[in-house]
Order: sequence, then structure tokens, then C-alpha cells
Amino acid sequence: MTSIKIPPDHPRAKSLTIREKLIEHYLEGIVAASGLIAHGRGEAFDYLLSEKTSRPALEGIQAAAATLLTAENPVISVNGNTAALVAEEIVKLANITEAKIEVNLFYRSLGRELAIKKLLEKAGAREVLGVGRKASARILELSSERRRVDPRGIMAADAVLVPLEDGDRTEALVRMGKKVIAIDLNPLSRTAQKATITIVDNIVRAAPSLVQAAERLKKRGIGKCREILLNFDNKKNLAGSIILMNENLTNFAEKTVRITNKGE
Amino acid sequence: MTSIKIPPDHPRAKSLTIREKLIEHYLEGIVAASGLIAHGRGEAFDYLLSEKTSRPALEGIQAAAATLLTAENPVISVNGNTAALVAEEIVKLANITEAKIEVNLFYRSLGRELAIKKLLEKAGAREVLGVGRKASARILELSSERRRVDPRGIMAADAVLVPLEDGDRTEALVRMGKKVIAIDLNPLSRTAQKATITIVDNIVRAAPSLVQAAERLKKRGIGKCREILLNFDNKKNLAGSIILMNENLTNFAEKTVRITNKGE
Repeated sequence: MTSIKIPPDHPRAKSLTIREKLIEHYLEGIVAASGLIAHGRGEAFDYLLSEKTSRPALEGIQAAAATLLTAENPVISVNGNTAALVAEEIVKLANITEAKIEVNLFYRSLGRELAIKKLLEKAGAREVLGVGRKASARILELSSERRRVDPRGIMAADAVLVPLEDGDRTEALVRMGKKVIAIDLNPLSRTAQKATITIVDNIVRAAPSLVQAAERLKKRGIGKCREILLNFDNKKNLAGSIILMNENLTNFAEKTVRITNKGE
Repeated sequence: MTSIKIPPDHPRAKSLTIREKLIEHYLEGIVAASGLIAHGRGEAFDYLLSEKTSRPALEGIQAAAATLLTAENPVISVNGNTAALVAEEIVKLANITEAKIEVNLFYRSLGRELAIKKLLEKAGAREVLGVGRKASARILELSSERRRVDPRGIMAADAVLVPLEDGDRTEALVRMGKKVIAIDLNPLSRTAQKATITIVDNIVRAAPSLVQAAERLKKRGIGKCREILLNFDNKKNLAGSIILMNENLTNFAEKTVRITNKGE
């Protein structure tokens, strides 16, 4: 069950290759089983986006980069799927924006925390917060292990990038007064709806794009960052992504109906 | 990593419980890792169907029951996810429609075949085809292990129910002149588009509904089955499901835009 060969004649070989990467990291203890299911959910929404970074996503990426660059204490929260797919981009982004990196898991176990820490260090991370006893602070509004955060990281942050996060935690962080940047392919999810800035894009495309945007914006200075943030409206941006999915689905529907009518 | 507790205050506890069932069966060697990802993909499309069995799905279920009841050699193809979620309903359906049950996997291994066979037998199956050397026939148009089928089962069948199947195999079976019934939450997938009859529904809801439909139709006789099949048009049915998803997405989009405008 561990060695999975992708048939080269399969029409979705590219998407299957990303899946295989996740499955490998699942077997190495980085990704949770539920992370595999979450990935599948994202795939479906990405399909409705034609698997491309949309204009609303690009605007979200600009606003996210501006937020991280203007924050006092930016933190990038990393879970299993994020580490498996874009560890190097996370480290680059942290370096450019002077953000801390913190491991933050829905299903915590010391083994997973350490495996993710190791992967991030291999990608160049100098310090990784939120591992083991370091995650000693608690978000009071959440139950169970999901509430644990690092007092030097997310607890003290004014802006947190939470790729692939769950709705409860996003809401809790926003209520604590933090700016929350989410990367979520489902524009209808609570995470997407509650975050300060939502990037509706596949993390495999969004993360390198975010690194580029941060590099460019850093050179242009704080003034440009503030201008971008003044013009950004997350609800409008989300509506843009939903409308885009809607249009794609309409096109699919029309195509199917056309085939139907031809058959008559 | 094996024991996963669902926080009782989580707003999607029901959906998480089904996920947990799949993950348990993954750990028991029934479900493939890629099956977890496929389940997530289905969840997203189910969300766009408001997680309800639609009118087009009900019509597909009627047509599927009619096809199995009027076939000479109906076969129900079972993969890991199907066995994990609806083994009992599969056995009931096979009994009512006098269909054979065959294990048919995208990623074959004798261990998985045997684990699925055992699960089906526990659910009451008398005979399970397609396990080990029994899967000695080959579908010539397919590469790798995906081509293996049982000469007494799928190879000889005139109608095959393939819940949660991949597009390649669906196409190959249709080209071999078989009536193929698919259960697939994505109405845009090749499986859904190529099958003779597609039930766009969550298998957890569709399988018990299919058992009921077969029970009722069996009493009403062959004439009623033929009438249902004469009036069924799969492309129109698929278009109905796509339009439904589209309407739901439009409603979501309008709601988000309304919130945006209120904020201005």
C-alpha cells in the first residue's frame, strides 16, 4: 500500500503527482489522514477555478504580502499539508517579511510536531516555534489540543498567516484582534469568510506567488503596502472568486446541455 | 496519529464522523490513501448539493435499480471506499437484484483485496469475486493493474454498478458494450459523463436509497423497469445536477455580495 505508481497515460497525472507527494508525507508522519481528505476537498474547488490563480487571488496575495510587511510581529502558522507542499516557500517568505514560523496542528502529537520542524529546518528555517512544551499558551475560546499556541509566536502576533486552517481557530484569532490571512480554496468556508484577508488559491501556486509579491513590495516600501491595504475589501474579493466559480460551472452546464440537445 | 477525536463543538461533526470511519478503514488496510483524497473531493461537490439527495439523483437511482433488475448478468464492483462506507447496503442490493459482487481496485494488492472480501462477507456476502488469482481476465484497453477483472464477474457482465470509479475504466467498460452505472458526486468528471447512468449523490445516501428502489421496483415488474429506462436521459440528468450546484453557488455568491454591500 505504500508504493503507488501513477499510470503515465492517466489524464490527471499532474494532480496525481501532488497527491502522491502528500501521501508520501503522510507515511512519514507529516500529514494527518484528515489532511489527505482536506486536500481532496481543495482539489474540487480548484477544479471550479480551472486550476489557475485568478485575479481576486492575485489581489489577495498582494494584500497578504502588504499585511505581513507592515506587521510588528508577523507569524506564519504551519500545519502538515503546508509543510509537505511548500516548506521552502514558507521559509523564504518568513525571511523576507521577518516573520516567525510556528507549527500549529489540528491534531497535535509530538511526533508530528518534530517531523514538521525537521522538514522546515531542512528547508532552511532557523527557528521553529510551537513544538512540544513551547506551545504552552492557550487560546481560551477553543477546546482540546487545538487551543495550544506558542507565547512567543501566535499568542504575541499582530498578523498571522494561516494556510489551510480550520474555521474555529480563524474566528478565535480574529476575535483576539489579530489580522488573519487565510489560504483556502473554498471561498464559502468559515475560514475564508472570517479571515481578514483570504487568498482563494491552491497553496502550491499561492505560496511562490506570495514570496514574489513580498520581495517586490518590500522594495517599494511601507507607503505602497498601506495603499494596497486601503483599497482591499475581503468580502468583495471573496465574491469575485465565487462569481468566477459560478461562471465556470455555468459554462460546464451549458456545454452539457448543448450535448444533450444535439442528441435529440 | 491513529486515534482522532472529533471536538464535539465542531460545526461539521457529522461530516467529520464519516471521515473518521474512512480513516479507520484506511488504517485497517481497506481504503487506499488516495481514497481519502477522493473522499474529500466528493465532500466539496456534496457541499454544492447542500448535502441532500436531489431530484436528478433520485431519478438516477430509479434508472439504476431498473437496469440492475433487467440485466442478465449484473455485477456490483466494490472498491475500498465503497466497502468502508456501505458494505451492508451493497450486499442487500446484490441479493435483491441477483447481482454478483466483485472487488475491483485502482491500486491492487492481495492484502487489500482480502481485507475488502472479509468486510463484505461480514456484511453477509456469500461470494466475492475478483480476489487474487480469480481476477485473471484483462480489460485490454487499460494499462497496469487497473485492467484486471474476474472472468465470471465484470468480464461477463452486461451491467456493472461502479460506485466511485475512475474515468478510464468507466470508458473502457462502456466501449466493451456494458451498461455502466456510476455513483459520482462530481457531475463533470469523465466517469459521470461517460457512464450509461450516473447517480450524482453521496454514496452514504445513495446506497440505501438504491436498495429501497430495487425492492419496490422488483415488486412492480419488468414492464415498469423498461418504462423508467425509456424515459431516462443521462445527459439531461447530469445537466440537472450541474444546474442545481450552479444555483446553490449563485445563492452563496449573492449572500456574500449582499454582506459586502451592507458594509458600504
